[in-house]
This record gives sequence, structure tokens and C-alpha cells, in this order.
Amino acid sequence: MKKNLCKGFSFSGVVSGLKKKSQKDLGLIYSEVPASIAGVFTKNRVQAAPVVLDRERIKIGVCRAVIANSGSANCCTGDQGMKDAIAEAKLAADGLNIYEELVVVASTGVIGKPLALDKIESAIPELVKSLSPGGINDFAEAIMTTDTVPKIVSSSGNIGGSGFTIAGVAKGAGMICPDMATMLCFVCTDAKASSGYLKKALASSVDKSFNRITIDGDTSTNDTILVMANGMSGASVKSRSEKEYFQELLDEVLMALARMVVKDGEGATKLVDVIVKGAASMSDAEKIAKTIANSNLVKTALFGEDANWGRIFAAAGRSGVEFDPGLADIFFDDVMMVKNGMGCGDAAEKEATKVLKKPEFAITVDLKTGKGKASVLTCDFSIDYVKINADYRS
Amino acid sequence: MKKNLCKGFSFSGVVSGLKKKSQKDLGLIYSEVPASIAGVFTKNRVQAAPVVLDRERIKIGVCRAVIANSGSANCCTGDQGMKDAIAEAKLAADGLNIYEELVVVASTGVIGKPLALDKIESAIPELVKSLSPGGINDFAEAIMTTDTVPKIVSSSGNIGGSGFTIAGVAKGAGMICPDMATMLCFVCTDAKASSGYLKKALASSVDKSFNRITIDGDTSTNDTILVMANGMSGASVKSRSEKEYFQELLDEVLMALARMVVKDGEGATKLVDVIVKGAASMSDAEKIAKTIANSNLVKTALFGEDANWGRIFAAAGRSGVEFDPGLADIFFDDVMMVKNGMGCGDAAEKEATKVLKKPEFAITVDLKTGKGKASVLTCDFSIDYVKINADYRS
Repeated sequence: MKKNLCKGFSFSGVVSGLKKKSQKDLGLIYSEVPASIAGVFTKNRVQAAPVVLDRERIKIGVCRAVIANSGSANCCTGDQGMKDAIAEAKLAADGLNIYEELVVVASTGVIGKPLALDKIESAIPELVKSLSPGGINDFAEAIMTTDTVPKIVSSSGNIGGSGFTIAGVAKGAGMICPDMATMLCFVCTDAKASSGYLKKALASSVDKSFNRITIDGDTSTNDTILVMANGMSGASVKSRSEKEYFQELLDEVLMALARMVVKDGEGATKLVDVIVKGAASMSDAEKIAKTIANSNLVKTALFGEDANWGRIFAAAGRSGVEFDPGLADIFFDDVMMVKNGMGCGDAAEKEATKVLKKPEFAITVDLKTGKGKASVLTCDFSIDYVKINADYRS
Repeated sequence: MKKNLCKGFSFSGVVSGLKKKSQKDLGLIYSEVPASIAGVFTKNRVQAAPVVLDRERIKIGVCRAVIANSGSANCCTGDQGMKDAIAEAKLAADGLNIYEELVVVASTGVIGKPLALDKIESAIPELVKSLSPGGINDFAEAIMTTDTVPKIVSSSGNIGGSGFTIAGVAKGAGMICPDMATMLCFVCTDAKASSGYLKKALASSVDKSFNRITIDGDTSTNDTILVMANGMSGASVKSRSEKEYFQELLDEVLMALARMVVKDGEGATKLVDVIVKGAASMSDAEKIAKTIANSNLVKTALFGEDANWGRIFAAAGRSGVEFDPGLADIFFDDVMMVKNGMGCGDAAEKEATKVLKKPEFAITVDLKTGKGKASVLTCDFSIDYVKINADYRS
């Protein structure tokens, strides 16, 4: 990202020693002035301490900094975990010389491992000192776990002659499933917007992005998406049309980040849009799309570049949705593989196999019944997924 | 199995050429006299032709033969598929010189592939000729797909001085999930029982066995469990105590077969009982146990022999059940890993790692809230699972 693009925000990421390997594991986002804040968190019944803390803190609608660590999820760590989350925020607040209530915390990594606060404390001076508008890449690296690339997206707009930027950073890789957002995502903008509006705008964007992706059907205890708006660009989001305009840009950023998260899914080699249309309702379409997108048999076939449409059909069939299998068509991109519930033969399969060799493509199931439509973004399920997850803690 | 143990039943299995490799792929079960029959079938919305046919045929409550093939599921094969299923039954009926209405059919294999009836027709004479009481092993082999071992269990009892046997054969390996039974399972007994009673007894046994296992969360379009009772032993199941006695034996056979199916799950190296107790209700316990048993992150950790209890906790948390994470205990066999929501430390982890090296063990989650208890049998998720399923059709 270009430097100074998102006015008043600075970022940093350092090595504190929380990760076994000497990799960046502690990140900081700082706004020169108090920013409006809104958040979306995991719906998992088991919630990490930082999630519990942030839910409370963002209620005041204002924030100045985010401290985020990888290497430990600070989850299932009991009362001590909550004390540690509060202490982690306070360390950042003291380093920045701001109120601790204006700092939120995010953690990712192994569940059940206590937070090594001493390591964080030692790293704070460097973390604060290295803050810079261009430090967003260091921050993105600091929150990575099994991610292979940092994920940063920005989008710029103009309201009333004032240019502004929305910049987002995310991490993903595993424990990703619809309805539970990603693990961590932070969005900063120098536009001015109320926290009430941000909350609605974020919910709407998340529904179109992070709630429509799946890597492994598992969902995290730490999922957090935060958006902060500090208003320093002078662009103010107030009128209905300005709100719609801002929403579009926010959608763009979150959808691009969500796509990056799936593309970098653990062991993933394919990025696949699962589209269901012609369903009796949108919710039916969604249920079927999610079941297909989460099916291990579908995902392993995608990895094997095998146009095994029978598995797609079988997954749709067990989604709990009533439909007439005799009406269903299935496509790989534009190649029709199934017409009215039956395979289209060897020539179609040959064409479909070409599609499957592509790194990105779409599977479309058309039930030809109603107007319900939904899509979910998924990846294939590879040998590396198993390797990564069998060895994660070792 | 000892010869002649299940009076009046004979079995065979031959190579017809339906499978690519020269392996047994066509099997026959024949009862000398009409047998009472009951069945349980897949709940998948997409159902194979033999499932649709059998549902109708067993309504009369009587049956004399089962013809079963691997190599093709005869699913998503349209009207032709139904004609083929009827023709497959007729070929067996003609060979055996019995009414075609008294023959049921089961198919397993790739979805969407038309049934090669000519191959089946050519194989019928040998299939009928080789029928023998001891041919059950050939039959068990003929229905295997990615199974690595044939699965046969028998149990004997005595009612009123007449000895009888219940013999069961199953195939599994993939597309196995609770609530959808296994792929194929056939149970024969020479006890006498009405089809009405058999139906109830089978439903009860399935609920304790095949509805409590999972390999990959995917469910098949062809799942079929049939039980046939021909009464030739002279033992008659009539009184309440006789019914309870028979039920116990039937449970024993189905539970043993279900266990064998999971043990031989695609790529499986571990057999794991997931037990949830202390839940507010049995249905809560069941939901949590199923979510844990189906979690890819839990299953890959089991493969990696990693006592990663955080993933078990996180899966419980996303099951949709309300519970207090701060009360939960987690055990690997008798080793307590989590007490009141927090890890028990390195010594416990060391002990748990020993448990994880065993081929069979239990994971117990105690929510310490109510009396709800349930268990689900699962296996680990290995690199071989992905290999098997990426390459299945090639």
C-alpha cells in the first residue's frame, strides 16, 4: 500500500518470541485521533478472552489502537486469560500513552496456551517505535499463522471533494466457515462515520464476504473483524447516497480479503465459487451451497481435478432441502455436466476436466424451481491440509 | 463363518467385470423359503434407483433374494436406471427361478455411471451356481469398494430349545455419517419373526449402531440396511422377552459391523469413541458429539497423534448447543486434559499423548450440567483419505 494513504493510521509488526520460530508475531494499529469502531465476533460458544474483552470495549464506540498477537489464541485460559488480555491492552496503552479503554486486543494461535506477557512487554518499545503509515505489511505478517501470504486490500473514494481510503488486513488459513467470519480482520479508514453506521455497514459487508467462505467447516473461538474510522481525510459519510457509496467500497475491501483468505486456505490449490440458483428460496440455496462447499468428498475430488459431479449431487441431497433431483443441472464454469439429474456424458466430462485444471472456477447447481440464489467460496482439500493440521502444534 | 450356521441362506460373489480391476463385484443372497424383510434406507434427497425400488418391494414384507453389485451406484441414472434396477432383479429371479417381486437390489460405486447389465447377465449362471451357505465371504468381498477388508459378524442364540443365528455383512469406507446408516448392510437370520417386528427391531438397532458413526460427514445416495428372517431354525421370536433377547443379539451384530466400518474408514488409522456426558439433554449431547466427531481439525489432530484439546473444545462450541465452557472437562481415555474449561498442563498432555498412540481410545467431554449422554464413533483423517478420494474414479 502507498504510504500515508489512510491518514492518521500507523502500523507495526515485530518479533516478540511468542511463535516458536523467529517470525513477526506482535502487531499494532494506532490512530492519531480517536476513531469510531464497530466489530463482528465469533458465534462459537467457546470464546477467547480478547473476544470477550473487545465486545465490551467497543460498546463506547471509540478506539485508538489494536494490539494483535499470533502464537497464542489466549482461549480456554480462564480468569488468568482475561487478566492477560487486559494487561496486553494496557501494555500497548502505556507504550502509546493513551487510555487503556481505547485499546482492543486480538489473539490467534494455539488454544489453551497461556499468553507470554513478559515477551509482549519486552517487545512494546520496538513495536511503538516502529509504527509508521507504511508498516501495514509488517502488521499483516505479525498476525499470520499458517497463512502463506500477508493479506492487505485497500480501496479509495471521494466524498465532497475529500479523498479517503479504506484499508483492510486479514489472516485466515484454517478454522474458516460461513457464519463465523474469518479469524482476524482489521479495517481502517480515514473517512468519518459514526460507530452506529459502521456497525450496520460492517454487518452488511460481512454477510457478503466472510460469511460466504469456507475452508474446513470448522469455526474459531477467536474470530474478530474490526473497522475503525478516524475521519482525518475530511470525507464524512452522512447522507444516504454517501452511505451507499461507502458501503460499496467497504464491500469491495472485505470481499477481496475474504477471497484472499480462501485462496490461501490451508493446503488449498483451487479457489471455487459454489453457486446455487433456481432454489425455492435464498435460504434453501444457501443451505445447499454451504453443504457442497463443506463436503470433504467434493473438496478432495476438486483436489484430484476429478469432475465427480455425483458427489456434488449427493451433498446437495443431504443438505436438508427438499428439491426435485430430476430437474437439477450442474455446471463447471460454462460446461454443463448434468442435465435434469443425469450426466451429460464423456464429451462434457472431458470439457469439465479442463475447467478443473484451472486455479479458479465456479460450480453452478441450477434447481430450476424458484428464484433463490446464493454462493459460497471454497477451496479444495489437499494432502497438505492434512499435513498442516496433523502437525500444527509440533 | 461356520457353514450352515444360518439355515436356509446361501451366498455367492463373483467377478462380472463391473469393476475396472478383476475383482468380485456381484453378490447374491438366497433364502430357500420366503423370508420376512425390513429395511432402512438413506435419507438423502438424491436416491439411487435400487433404493427407490427396494422401498417399494419390501412393503409386501417378504423376500427371497438380494442381488448386490459394486462398481456402479446406479444413481442419477434417470428412468433407464430404474429399468436397469428392475432388470437386475429379474436376471437374479430368472436364474433362481423365483418371482422377481421377491428379489431386492443394492448397488454401490460411482454415481452417474449406467449399469452394465450385459456383464451382470453373463455372470448370473456362475453367481447362482456358486451359491453356498459358506459363500458369505465371497458375497462380502463382492460389495467392497474402497473397503480394505470384508465385514462379516454373526451371533447365535436359542429360543425354546431351537438354536438360531443372526449373520450380517456390511460395506462402508466413505460417505459415512450419522443418520444416514452405512452404505450397504445385509442381515440374515434363521429365526422366525414378522416383518413388522423386524422393522421396529432394525430401527432400534440402527439407532444404536450405524446412526452413531461417522467417517467423513458425507452421506450416500445408496445407503441400505436390510434384515431377512426365514424361520428355518425353528426358533420363533414372539413373546416380549423373546423380542428383547433377539433385539440384543441384533444390536450386537449391527454394532460390531458399524465398528468394523469405521475401523476400515477410508485412510483411517484410529478408532475413536467420542462421548459427551453431563449435557442438558441427550439431544444436546448428541449434537456436540457429532460436531466433534465430524470436525476435520479434530480428525487431523487425531491422525497427527496430537492431544490438541482446543480443537475439541472449539468444535463443541460451534455445535449450536448452549453450555458453560467454564464447567467442561475433557478426557482422553482416563487422562484428564481439561478441567473446568482450562488445560491441565504438560504432565497431563504427556499422558494423553500416550493414549493417542493407541489404535482405539475414547474422548470424553463432561459438561457437568445435566444427565444427557451420547456417543459417536469416528476415525482419524489421514493423508490417505485425501489420496483415496482425490483419485477415486481414476
